[in-house]
Amino acid sequence: MKVALLSGGVGGARFARGLVDVLAPGELTIVGNVGDDVEILGLHVSPDLDSLLYTLAGLSDEERGWGRAGETWSALGAAAAWGGDDWFKLGDLDLGLHLVRTEALRDGVPLSAVTAELVERAGLEAKILLATDDRLRTHVETPAGTFSFQEWFVGRGHRDEVDAVVFEGADAARVAPGVVDALESADALVIAPSNPYVSIAPILAVADIRTALERRRVRCVAVSPLVGGVAVKGPADRMLARMAGGTTPAHVARCYEGLVDALVVDEADLPAEAPVELVATRTLMVDRAASRRLAEVVLETACV
Amino acid sequence: MKVALLSGGVGGARFARGLVDVLAPGELTIVGNVGDDVEILGLHVSPDLDSLLYTLAGLSDEERGWGRAGETWSALGAAAAWGGDDWFKLGDLDLGLHLVRTEALRDGVPLSAVTAELVERAGLEAKILLATDDRLRTHVETPAGTFSFQEWFVGRGHRDEVDAVVFEGADAARVAPGVVDALESADALVIAPSNPYVSIAPILAVADIRTALERRRVRCVAVSPLVGGVAVKGPADRMLARMAGGTTPAHVARCYEGLVDALVVDEADLPAEAPVELVATRTLMVDRAASRRLAEVVLETACV
Repeated sequence: MKVALLSGGVGGARFARGLVDVLAPGELTIVGNVGDDVEILGLHVSPDLDSLLYTLAGLSDEERGWGRAGETWSALGAAAAWGGDDWFKLGDLDLGLHLVRTEALRDGVPLSAVTAELVERAGLEAKILLATDDRLRTHVETPAGTFSFQEWFVGRGHRDEVDAVVFEGADAARVAPGVVDALESADALVIAPSNPYVSIAPILAVADIRTALERRRVRCVAVSPLVGGVAVKGPADRMLARMAGGTTPAHVARCYEGLVDALVVDEADLPAEAPVELVATRTLMVDRAASRRLAEVVLETACV
Repeated sequence: MKVALLSGGVGGARFARGLVDVLAPGELTIVGNVGDDVEILGLHVSPDLDSLLYTLAGLSDEERGWGRAGETWSALGAAAAWGGDDWFKLGDLDLGLHLVRTEALRDGVPLSAVTAELVERAGLEAKILLATDDRLRTHVETPAGTFSFQEWFVGRGHRDEVDAVVFEGADAARVAPGVVDALESADALVIAPSNPYVSIAPILAVADIRTALERRRVRCVAVSPLVGGVAVKGPADRMLARMAGGTTPAHVARCYEGLVDALVVDEADLPAEAPVELVATRTLMVDRAASRRLAEVVLETACV
């Protein structure tokens, strides 16, 4: 059973691991978000792709919720002492990846090919594709001004309310190799419990990806990132309240209008109505078993 | 008393620290070697400049003989796991500097300006200039082929005998800002106990620097890097034996023909004759006090 998953970072990565645990090797293809990619200290950093890579490779720091386990911070401290930026936390282990990736990009290798190589080195059972190799960057419009995603999310601790999200370069962005084929040949399409506005929307901002979902011939199931109307992590609830007018399953479903057939929500969000089929379960991925159970419910929902 | 010092890496840096300890703040200007600069993992590394910077800033690992004290190696290990090169040892603390420098260079800041900024941040009492901002790279011709300096020195453990040393880009290289003025206004010129072929020659390969030394109106004193005909560190003795025909003070002096008025050698190299004045002392810089004593002898020799 071939599954294609649109996913953001940490939450999406944990869900992806659940799918990997349920599916056979090679059955899962993930389409990752590059809208929050950022250049730090001259290095190309792809936070969402890295969360996927680290989580699926068993390298992630589960307690901190991002980055690598056993991480140290010597290089960043030294860089700061020499006048470099240190607002974006790059650990020493993490830097190893950014150095290798940035060098390959400067040599002209596309990000999709670099990512495929990293996935192969990590020996993952899933493929990680990305929305586009072209430059696509998420910006948020706030009462305090417009900021690039990381400037707002990390630099300002995402404290500003968001009025709109803009994807620089989206109009010209060509879908990355393999993505349309993965979406068209999948037996089930899934949208991970990621932030609809800043994790999934930048993927859907690539026209061919949105079109592939609109024209799907199999079911597409989204998982809500909210539990009882509250985001497990990050500002998804505040963004939904301000931009969609609420945090119920119906508000989440409307983010994916015409793209999904069912929405999996947490039991804490019941009772609820929505313009698509609703399936309630426990969505909080407290451990790997919980991710696996959630993945099973999602696949059952996709295959009715 | 203004002193201008031509210097390579570790040995030169220790000698420079001796000079700093003897001179008043601001009196020492060092002209460093960029011939062994290398791009590693996409980062610009200037090993000789960094040895000067780290040693004068009190950051160097005295026992290991290169790099920073308290160094760790997480990033390099991670990079290697992702397929990156790890033949050139870049520590995590060291990486912080390379990241900041490389980012500045990519932004168009010349290496001389980057270096001046680093020197200022480190609060050094000496200036560190460099021979040239233009690309000048040392290559060695050996029976096994021609190699870039670091490929031979680090990658092959400098095991190949050297038949000739070539400085790529030297003909077109323009002297870096401040160097000629520092050489012309100095009260004494000094050549550090560095490898004449691969540390000092790439500096002298910049025409205006050689000319400034040839036309000097003050004395120039070189310090031999050999003790009893043997290099304290590195391949200077083997290079002298093969390319100059011997390792006596006369052979060392001939590397600097027309450029120096005196050569300071170790007592272990006596008796000796040379085409320039010879001064014998204990040149092994076993500790900071020894570096200081050597610096005093050199300055006395320069100021007769």
